[in-house]
Amino acid sequence: MLFFTQCFGAVLDLIHLRFQHYKAKRVFSAAGQLVCVVNPTHSLKYAPTRCAAAQASTDQGILPPCHHHEVVHDPQLVPCTCPLFSCPWEGHLEVVVSHLRQTHRINILQGAEIVFLATDMHLPAPTDWIIMHSCLGHQFLLVLRKQEKYEGHPQFFATMMLIGTPTQANNFTYRLELNRNQRRLKWEATPRSILECVDSVISDGDCLVLNTSLAQLFSDNGSLAIGIAITTSKVHSSEAEM
Amino acid sequence: MLFFTQCFGAVLDLIHLRFQHYKAKRVFSAAGQLVCVVNPTHSLKYAPTRCAAAQASTDQGILPPCHHHEVVHDPQLVPCTCPLFSCPWEGHLEVVVSHLRQTHRINILQGAEIVFLATDMHLPAPTDWIIMHSCLGHQFLLVLRKQEKYEGHPQFFATMMLIGTPTQANNFTYRLELNRNQRRLKWEATPRSILECVDSVISDGDCLVLNTSLAQLFSDNGSLAIGIAITTSKVHSSEAEM
Repeated sequence: MLFFTQCFGAVLDLIHLRFQHYKAKRVFSAAGQLVCVVNPTHSLKYAPTRCAAAQASTDQGILPPCHHHEVVHDPQLVPCTCPLFSCPWEGHLEVVVSHLRQTHRINILQGAEIVFLATDMHLPAPTDWIIMHSCLGHQFLLVLRKQEKYEGHPQFFATMMLIGTPTQANNFTYRLELNRNQRRLKWEATPRSILECVDSVISDGDCLVLNTSLAQLFSDNGSLAIGIAITTSKVHSSEAEM
Repeated sequence: MLFFTQCFGAVLDLIHLRFQHYKAKRVFSAAGQLVCVVNPTHSLKYAPTRCAAAQASTDQGILPPCHHHEVVHDPQLVPCTCPLFSCPWEGHLEVVVSHLRQTHRINILQGAEIVFLATDMHLPAPTDWIIMHSCLGHQFLLVLRKQEKYEGHPQFFATMMLIGTPTQANNFTYRLELNRNQRRLKWEATPRSILECVDSVISDGDCLVLNTSLAQLFSDNGSLAIGIAITTSKVHSSEAEM
């Protein structure tokens, strides 16, 4: 295990080095790993209490009444789950990914293990860094958010959501890893379903949380590299799938 | 690695279960691991700016002017490094451990991997949980502190300090691991030397930091189990030792 983690540390160091030469590219490969450069977006619809009703989330593929700008008439339809914009779109869960790609231009990456390289960490809160990750036959949404829970003290929150139902999400484990300056921080958890609303996951603090000082220790030249891996958490995960 | 971490998770679950039956004991064994029950102590000398001068720490075995209640006249002597009490004691680095044991009654545990079980996590800040850990021929001080960096928002800070010089500390890596409720958080770093002052390490945030909500997710019945492991970070660590 020590060997594995040391190798992973060396990979993240290489990525920081190689990024200096590939700043113009959004996706490149370093030490055999796919690296996605993710630029920040100033969140246009951030409101801490927007998802107070998210607790009522069910496993029926219906989003709780989180988007107050509209009422979902058809229980088979879900509103747009993009954390960045208030969007009137609604559609079936199966087409959420194509809506996020086409309308909100969120990048999608393939691969079991990728590196998410968030740039411009110094920008003021609220700011989001978002990509989609396609892996093990499913799509996941990775959200890194800079937010001031305590006024004047921004923190970074990182979580991974499955673009699927909570039952499907229970079949996976995601890992986020930071590695720099002889320090390593690793968070592993079951992804939450996109139907549960990313805002409530972050406001509950049930994710990787970094103070500004720790984020600076793990950053290089204003960029933060997060290693991402997704595994199936059950041996017979296909049996539990809907 | 997945197998190892899953086993470790099961061990921490067993510890929580077994703790219900061993509440009266301070040290017990569960699933082959030594568990130390650590009760909280309300810090009597906490002051955030006490160690502002700690940056001047050197590798000469001399504590920076951190304890203002006295002046260290003999450069071979170090003041008491106990994070809990203002103590007028001073002595050689080699006898700090016996002073901490005898005068401040800080427990010491042997073993490469132990579990630190901090009780009564609900107690108000500032509160400390402290033990010493004897391993690989050296002694380490583990400090878990509940502190309000932002008023009204207590956080938990955990770090490991070598009772030795910074040069000696560079030869080791320590790991703190939390594992509960399908979540795992792991922090790895080089221990800091006790000469650098634990207060400055915590105020810099260069340690494992937990918000109250995350601490609750990892706690069981008000107790937090932290798995601790220490390894040598250099193959020929003995060569670099003083």
